[in-house]
Amino acid sequence: MRYCRVEIEGRPVWGRVDGDVVGLLTGSPIEGEAAPDGRVIALDTAVLLHPVVPPVFYAVGMNYKSHVAHAQALGNKTAVLPDRPEVAYRANNALTGHGAPIVKPAEVTGRFEAEPEVVAVIGRTLRHASYAEAREAVFGWTIGNDVSAREWQHADRSFWRSKNSDTFKPMGPWIETDVDPLAQTTTLRVNGEERASFATGDMVFDPYDYLVETSRYLTLHPGDVLWLGADATCQLAPGDTVDIEISGIGVLTNHVVLERTHPERPRR
Amino acid sequence: MRYCRVEIEGRPVWGRVDGDVVGLLTGSPIEGEAAPDGRVIALDTAVLLHPVVPPVFYAVGMNYKSHVAHAQALGNKTAVLPDRPEVAYRANNALTGHGAPIVKPAEVTGRFEAEPEVVAVIGRTLRHASYAEAREAVFGWTIGNDVSAREWQHADRSFWRSKNSDTFKPMGPWIETDVDPLAQTTTLRVNGEERASFATGDMVFDPYDYLVETSRYLTLHPGDVLWLGADATCQLAPGDTVDIEISGIGVLTNHVVLERTHPERPRR
Repeated sequence: MRYCRVEIEGRPVWGRVDGDVVGLLTGSPIEGEAAPDGRVIALDTAVLLHPVVPPVFYAVGMNYKSHVAHAQALGNKTAVLPDRPEVAYRANNALTGHGAPIVKPAEVTGRFEAEPEVVAVIGRTLRHASYAEAREAVFGWTIGNDVSAREWQHADRSFWRSKNSDTFKPMGPWIETDVDPLAQTTTLRVNGEERASFATGDMVFDPYDYLVETSRYLTLHPGDVLWLGADATCQLAPGDTVDIEISGIGVLTNHVVLERTHPERPRR
Repeated sequence: MRYCRVEIEGRPVWGRVDGDVVGLLTGSPIEGEAAPDGRVIALDTAVLLHPVVPPVFYAVGMNYKSHVAHAQALGNKTAVLPDRPEVAYRANNALTGHGAPIVKPAEVTGRFEAEPEVVAVIGRTLRHASYAEAREAVFGWTIGNDVSAREWQHADRSFWRSKNSDTFKPMGPWIETDVDPLAQTTTLRVNGEERASFATGDMVFDPYDYLVETSRYLTLHPGDVLWLGADATCQLAPGDTVDIEISGIGVLTNHVVLERTHPERPRR
């Protein structure tokens, strides 16, 4: 099944994608409240929102060997292969959907990059989970683009604006419930040209390893998302269209625009 | 006004505290949907939940001079006074309310500490805000305890379990809308004995500085919270009761219990 959220008259509505149409639902399939509400719209005219608003937005940093090697080659001394499956966080304000613009802030200089990632959407409450329980707790899989402004990433105390400025976290187009993400291929394209392709499952720690370790200390809830890292990145510039395709899930497409400048506001 | 969330028949309900009673409300006062629903309960029997579930949970690290000096004296080399008002994040799973236990994980060794913080609750959408707009966008103020397991904080890649294990973020008891937080005193007590007392407003950057800077890059939303750092900490042990009082707001009380141990679960 493919579940999405679409904007209908300014409000989010859950839907189920069936070929080239979306059947709207009465509630969230993650919460088990989703029956058809009788309305059907064309997929190609649907405004697809990010497919879930997570209670907690988990993300993994370095989870592919060649991404670590690439970051080291560029002088990032903190880039080392993890010896444990540890999570970090991103922020909901940065989420946006398939087809929406990625807005590059006027102040950004230096590398401005896409990171193509597979995303686990949690379907069950999870605490002190076994590996088998972690596998069963995933509702489905979607695609994320962990857009990053590298100069801010290295200069700031946290990843707050480097990775969490508005629109820096496109996610979608939908949640696919019937796919093994570890058997897929991730392809990154800019303006139709392939920039990277890697085995989605070639991770240092797999999704379930993260859920087992994380749930030793905290409770994961339905709707939480876990972004699983990228094996390759590429630079983006205003005017670009970036596609992230993960076989068996779909294609997440966004275009890059430059922020209009804003006057400096008085601080005190 | 003092607004709270109470648990009624297993569900959260907004309320307004009036002396020793809580008048229940039809919706969220932050969303402007709060009319009395006619029910009134006694404050001393109310189960107070954390007073808001934030869309994004912002937190500030080093925001008081003596806290930085204390961390440096204990060997934390990354502890330096900030030269810009930068935010970081905490996670909603860790939130708990006034009166609820702080559960110390069985695995925690080393310092396990309370950090008493004043918390801004955002009431309006904010982007490219001036200082004056930032002041007007705060709905009210509450109290947070940024419980921290220091060995994990220093050993892990992120603050995921050191500051975000379940129950590590008590917040409450309510949101006070009519107080100037910068003119108050924060007092930290363990088992009734004062451990620290400081001027709440003695910050390196004030709450509005953070909102101005943050909103240059991202949108703050109603219900977002900003925890503003601590000037002093103290150690906690199972059996302790910890009070954080901020004059003009109230007292946040929690007791510390030791987690029962769990068997190691098979990872693969």
